[in-house]
Amino acid sequence: MAFIDTERGVCISGFKAAGARKGKYGVAVILADRVCTATGVFTRNSVKAAPLKLTRSRLKNGIRAVVANSGNANACTPTGLEDARAMGEHAAEVLGVEARNVAVGSTGIIGRSLDLDTVKTLIREASKGLSSSRKASLEAAKAIMTTDTVPKMFSARYKGIEVGGITKGAGMIKPEMATTLVYLTTNADLSQDRLKTALMKSADNSFNMITVDNDMSTNDMILLLSNRVKKCRPSDLQRLLDHVLTELAKKVAFDGEGATKNIEVEVYNARDLNTARKGAKAVVASPLVKSMFYGVNPNWGRIIAALGSAIKVDYRRVDVVFKSGNKRTTVLKQGVGGDLRKARALMKNREVRVEINLNQGGRYSATAWGCDLTPEYVKINAGYS
Amino acid sequence: MAFIDTERGVCISGFKAAGARKGKYGVAVILADRVCTATGVFTRNSVKAAPLKLTRSRLKNGIRAVVANSGNANACTPTGLEDARAMGEHAAEVLGVEARNVAVGSTGIIGRSLDLDTVKTLIREASKGLSSSRKASLEAAKAIMTTDTVPKMFSARYKGIEVGGITKGAGMIKPEMATTLVYLTTNADLSQDRLKTALMKSADNSFNMITVDNDMSTNDMILLLSNRVKKCRPSDLQRLLDHVLTELAKKVAFDGEGATKNIEVEVYNARDLNTARKGAKAVVASPLVKSMFYGVNPNWGRIIAALGSAIKVDYRRVDVVFKSGNKRTTVLKQGVGGDLRKARALMKNREVRVEINLNQGGRYSATAWGCDLTPEYVKINAGYS
Repeated sequence: MAFIDTERGVCISGFKAAGARKGKYGVAVILADRVCTATGVFTRNSVKAAPLKLTRSRLKNGIRAVVANSGNANACTPTGLEDARAMGEHAAEVLGVEARNVAVGSTGIIGRSLDLDTVKTLIREASKGLSSSRKASLEAAKAIMTTDTVPKMFSARYKGIEVGGITKGAGMIKPEMATTLVYLTTNADLSQDRLKTALMKSADNSFNMITVDNDMSTNDMILLLSNRVKKCRPSDLQRLLDHVLTELAKKVAFDGEGATKNIEVEVYNARDLNTARKGAKAVVASPLVKSMFYGVNPNWGRIIAALGSAIKVDYRRVDVVFKSGNKRTTVLKQGVGGDLRKARALMKNREVRVEINLNQGGRYSATAWGCDLTPEYVKINAGYS
Repeated sequence: MAFIDTERGVCISGFKAAGARKGKYGVAVILADRVCTATGVFTRNSVKAAPLKLTRSRLKNGIRAVVANSGNANACTPTGLEDARAMGEHAAEVLGVEARNVAVGSTGIIGRSLDLDTVKTLIREASKGLSSSRKASLEAAKAIMTTDTVPKMFSARYKGIEVGGITKGAGMIKPEMATTLVYLTTNADLSQDRLKTALMKSADNSFNMITVDNDMSTNDMILLLSNRVKKCRPSDLQRLLDHVLTELAKKVAFDGEGATKNIEVEVYNARDLNTARKGAKAVVASPLVKSMFYGVNPNWGRIIAALGSAIKVDYRRVDVVFKSGNKRTTVLKQGVGGDLRKARALMKNREVRVEINLNQGGRYSATAWGCDLTPEYVKINAGYS
C-alpha cells in the first residue's frame, strides 16, 4: 500500500488554519477541533527563544491551537517570555480556547522586542479566515516565511492515517533567520510517548539531515499535534511520518538562500548508521562542495576531503556516482577518477544526486539534502536585519 | 624583554631558502647547514596526502631539507607515495643531502597526478638561487602560494632564540586548496619531545584558532626544524613560538579568499579554556557572522546564536564590544543591545576586533581570527580546479 498525497497541508480532517501578513510580520494560526496530544523537537542551541520555552512547558497540557509569527524571533529580549505569553493569551481569547493549550512560535531577527500590537492585529485578522481548506493551510505556510521564496506544505495518507504539515526555512547553513519551524498534524491515536519516539526518529532522517547539528537556531522547533481519532500501529505512523517529514525537509533544503541547484547525497555500504549520516551531511554541508556545484566544476577531491574530515574513509575503496533524471556518470571508481566531461554536463541540471559507496562492508546508508552556495547567498545574508 | 622582529622568514642563521614558479606549479626549498631535530603537526583528516605520510615517517631521521610544491596536492592518486619519494630524492641529489633527511610537502588540487617533470625542473631551478637572504625566504613563500594574494613570512628573536617561518593558505573555511603549510626554523637547543610539546601548544593557540577542527585539508602540515645551536629554556621558546605562529596564522586568516575585513574575536571570563576556544571559533567561523561583517550590518543576535550553538551561554550576562583602531563601542551589555549606529560606523574599517565577556566567573580567554564572507569567495571556489 502506497502513500497518497492529499495536498491538505496541516488542514487534515479536524484541523483548521489561517494566515495573515503585514510588512515584515506574518502570523499563522492552526486550530484543532479538540485538545490534541502534542510532542515536539526543539533546538539544541544553549540560547533558546522564549516561545520555545513556553511551548515546551505546555506540551503536557495538550495543545489545541498554534500561533506562530515571522518577522521577529522573540529571542534575547528582556520581555521575551511575557511577550510570548501575551501572544498566546490573545490567540486563546480570539479562538475561544484556553491559553494553557496554545503553542507559540516565532522566527525572525534576534534581540529586538516583538511588536506585540502588530502580532495581535494579525492574530485577529488571520482568525477571521480560519478554514479547513487547502488554501487556508497555504496561507498559514505563507505567513511564517522569512527568506523563503516559496511557501512549504505537504500531507499524505497511509492506511487511513493522516499526517500534514507546514514548514519554513531556507538554506542549509544554519539559521537565526533560517530558523526551521515545522507544524504537523495527525489523527494517529498513539500515546504522547509513542508520538515522541516516532517524531524524533523521523526528524533524525529528515530535518536533521539538512542542517549541521551544532549550528541550530535559537528558535528551531518541530511540533506534532494528534487528535487521536484513528487507531493505528506505531510502525505505520512511523512510515508515514518519515515520508511527510522528508518531503518537508527537502523543500527547505532546496529553497536554500540564493540556491540554483538541489543536491541530494546518499552514502551507503557504511559500517554503521552514524558513519553514513555524518558522511552524507559533511559532503552536502561543505562550502567547497557547494561552491563546486554552483560552478559546475566536478572535483571529486573535494567530496573525498569533506568525507575524510568527518569520518574514517579509505578513498581507494570509494565509488562516487552523479545522477540527474535518468542519466548517471561515474565520477570516482575505487579511488580512480572517471569522465569529468560527462559529470560537468550532468551538473548543469537543477537536480543532482550524489551516490557514495563507501564499500566498508557494512550495509548502512543515509541521505542528506542541500543546495549550492552562490554569491547571492552572501548578498542575502549581508543585507538581512 | 620584548620580541625583536627580524624579517628573515625561515632564513634565520644556519638556514637557506629558495623558490621557483612555472604556471600553476611552484617549488620551495629550505636547506639547513646540518641535520635538524624535527617535529610536526599534521592534518586530522582521515584522508592524508602522500607527502604527509612520507614526511612523518622521516621525522625520526632528522631533517636537513624541505621541498614543497604548490599546484598539486599529490593526494588520492595511485602513485602518490612514489611521486613524493621521487620528489624528495631529486631534491636530495640536487642539494647534496640524504633523501632520508628530506621533508616533502604539497598543496593544490586533489586526485590528479603530480607533474613530476615540472616539479623536478623547478627543484633544480630553485636550488640555483639558494641563499640566506630575506629575499630568498620571500621567494620560498611565494612558491607555495595557491589562492593566496600575498606571500606570508615572519621571524623574531627573543633572548637569543630565533624562530622564523613561511606559510600559505587563504580563507577560514577549510581547505583542499586552502591547505595550510607552515615551515618553521629555529636554533633552540631542545629535545624533539620538548620541541613537539611546544609546537603543539603554539599550534592550538594560533593555527587551530583559524580553522574549524573537523574541516582540515588532506595536506595540512606544520613542520619545525631546529639546528640546536642555542641553549634555551623551554618556556622562552614557547613564548617566542607562540608569537611567531600567531603572526603567521593571522596572515592566513586575514588573507581569506575574497575577504575585505580582518576579524579578531576574543572570548574571555569563560569557565574553562575549552569553552573560550570553542566560543571564539564558533563566532569567527559562522557564515552569518561573516556575512554580517561583509554587509556592515551589526546584528548581535547572530553572535549570540553562534556562541549558543557551540557552548553553554546565558546571553543576559554577555557583553559584546566592537573595537577598531582606538575606537570602541558596546554592542551588547548584559544582554541588552547598544548603539548600533556607532557599531555600523566602526564596522566599515578593515580591522575589527570583537570582545565577548561571558561573565561566567572563570578567568579563561581565547582569541580566534578570521575574515568576512563575500560573494567573491564563492566565485573563487566555484571556478577553482
